[in-house]
Amino acid sequence: MSIIALITDYGKSDWFAGEMKGAIAGIAPAATIIDITHDIEPGNVKSAAFSLLASYKTFPAGTVFCVVVDPGVGTSRAPLAIKSGAIFFIGPDNGVLSWALRNEPDCEVRRIEYPDLLPREISSTFHGRDIFGPVAAHIAAGAGMEKTGPVISSMIEIPWPSPTREHDRIIGSIVYIDRFGNAITTIDKHSLNTLTDASHVKLQKYGTELPLCTHFQQVPTGQGLSYLGSSGYLEIAINNANAAAIFGLHIGDTISVE
Amino acid sequence: MSIIALITDYGKSDWFAGEMKGAIAGIAPAATIIDITHDIEPGNVKSAAFSLLASYKTFPAGTVFCVVVDPGVGTSRAPLAIKSGAIFFIGPDNGVLSWALRNEPDCEVRRIEYPDLLPREISSTFHGRDIFGPVAAHIAAGAGMEKTGPVISSMIEIPWPSPTREHDRIIGSIVYIDRFGNAITTIDKHSLNTLTDASHVKLQKYGTELPLCTHFQQVPTGQGLSYLGSSGYLEIAINNANAAAIFGLHIGDTISVE
Amino acid sequence: MSIIALITDYGKSDWFAGEMKGAIAGIAPAATIIDITHDIEPGNVKSAAFSLLASYKTFPAGTVFCVVVDPGVGTSRAPLAIKSGAIFFIGPDNGVLSWALRNEPDCEVRRIEYPDLLPREISSTFHGRDIFGPVAAHIAAGAGMEKTGPVISSMIEIPWPSPTREHDRIIGSIVYIDRFGNAITTIDKHSLNTLTDASHVKLQKYGTELPLCTHFQQVPTGQGLSYLGSSGYLEIAINNANAAAIFGLHIGDTISVE
Repeated sequence: MSIIALITDYGKSDWFAGEMKGAIAGIAPAATIIDITHDIEPGNVKSAAFSLLASYKTFPAGTVFCVVVDPGVGTSRAPLAIKSGAIFFIGPDNGVLSWALRNEPDCEVRRIEYPDLLPREISSTFHGRDIFGPVAAHIAAGAGMEKTGPVISSMIEIPWPSPTREHDRIIGSIVYIDRFGNAITTIDKHSLNTLTDASHVKLQKYGTELPLCTHFQQVPTGQGLSYLGSSGYLEIAINNANAAAIFGLHIGDTISVE
Repeated sequence: MSIIALITDYGKSDWFAGEMKGAIAGIAPAATIIDITHDIEPGNVKSAAFSLLASYKTFPAGTVFCVVVDPGVGTSRAPLAIKSGAIFFIGPDNGVLSWALRNEPDCEVRRIEYPDLLPREISSTFHGRDIFGPVAAHIAAGAGMEKTGPVISSMIEIPWPSPTREHDRIIGSIVYIDRFGNAITTIDKHSLNTLTDASHVKLQKYGTELPLCTHFQQVPTGQGLSYLGSSGYLEIAINNANAAAIFGLHIGDTISVE
Repeated sequence: MSIIALITDYGKSDWFAGEMKGAIAGIAPAATIIDITHDIEPGNVKSAAFSLLASYKTFPAGTVFCVVVDPGVGTSRAPLAIKSGAIFFIGPDNGVLSWALRNEPDCEVRRIEYPDLLPREISSTFHGRDIFGPVAAHIAAGAGMEKTGPVISSMIEIPWPSPTREHDRIIGSIVYIDRFGNAITTIDKHSLNTLTDASHVKLQKYGTELPLCTHFQQVPTGQGLSYLGSSGYLEIAINNANAAAIFGLHIGDTISVE
């Protein structure tokens, strides 16, 4: 039986995430539900898209990712069920799945609309409980993709802010700030490897230069550094401190590797 | 094997919820534990009572709900084990179960006191670990209700603030505010259906009138609306914003449908 | 199949705890993962050490505790795998396991270094996902301790701030403050029992004296009390209020039982 991995903005203080899991457990009692996070900022589709991109490759084959950050709930935006090899993605068609899917070129994309896998009553405001959770549960329990709805040929994509190359440097931007205040950038391992003698990273806003390191303790406590992070992207941090707060970093800030 | 669904005010920053689950897993290793929430405001029995009411119907038959918001822990307040059809409720006799039980007229209510299902040592301050969790686990693992203690004929009930009908309007109040700032009222689907031409909802404190909608995007971003929420009660929200903060809403505020 | 119980400072707002669970579930799909907490203050090794000490005895035999608060990640600090009877502890060699291990005199302590249980690629910053989680999962799935690495004879210990006896009083200190504002002290049940007529607890900083009670409701709402807490240590609280905030308590503050 499969894993169902959840990313939502439902938070943990109300019952929404728990009730969604109740709906899932009623359909797929043997599935293992893993919370990736329920604390996406309400409605922040990009933050959820990056959280999925950063984490999904660690999960085993068979995992069903169910991502519900859905400010358009109740409108005509489509609910999607997507299969790529042995993994599945369920979520609204608002781009929240699109950054992970850039790595998955051969997908079967379906618009969820057949009633077979859906409860009889569907609310207009809680599709995690009434559509996405139940479909994820049925898929995890072995239902075929063809039960979800018809194949469609396009879906909404959020443009990925690709880094650019300029002579001997790569220019990227901050795409996510984590709870430690570490800033994750758009510059991935592959881009970084194209620079043969990269030595430091520059925060454009302040002109600050940070050394390229492999781990935090290579610099003294309180000093900034840059390193290839665990999700495969260049990160900016301060050893034992909150880089985002101290450097004043924001999502979208330009940085370069030189 | 059953689901054990938890509602507590133990929070997630300490080990209390996790330790309670350790006690449960030692007794019922095959049970699936689902956190509804552990972030009830400390001691807020009504908030827990509403969270249970709003969520429990989504869980499958066999679920054991274990609700521990228990400011009277260590006193003579009874611990309760309740069976209604194929679902079970475990918690202190302080009204925390009573709002859900308004929907469950034929209950077997027992006062937990027999030692069979309890650990040898019971602390005076952590009955989630020492009484409620273990009893829920034994019930989930198949123990009979008669093992918990004697049947009792009454329990403490928190009065439900029922909405009232006045000519062509229904007057209710706000009973819960969720993490999005949406305010859930006491006016349920059934009451609402008795008003044949309801057109708007009025916040008494300010005289503000909000349109009755079916989903958020029916009004522009930043505008208020009212709609029948996913738990079956009328809600007040602002599209893509925090209605409680912006309108200054509080639990107990009067609202009316006109 | 075993339980894997997690204590980390990864938080719940990012994907780190969830991704670590994905790595575990890929190796030990039948293990039950229980979150003790992921909300340890970033890098606070002592807070994690006490959380483990306070909670681990409630878990059943076979449990694998995986504790990752690891400011030295990426340096040469050893990763440890420890067996004591039928329970296991996995974590960095920075003292985070040492307070619990004071109760476990006969341990097999190994330095994780053999590649058998580790993924091919190991990041420098996320050993919860790449070392501690996978090793915990393999142990839970039945791998022998000898697969982890060689036995070592010493590990880093954080000195436990033992209470001292002075004539007819015991002097201890505050070691943890929980989410309710209750302050847990270093004075355990055993020490307390050596004082035959203890009557009250004194907060040295203010000279405040608190009665020794068994549960919160023995004093009126808003009044201070002291009691033997559920983890076996003397605690200081205010009935229905936040003692740490109101009394201005901090970790390390001296208290005495007289």
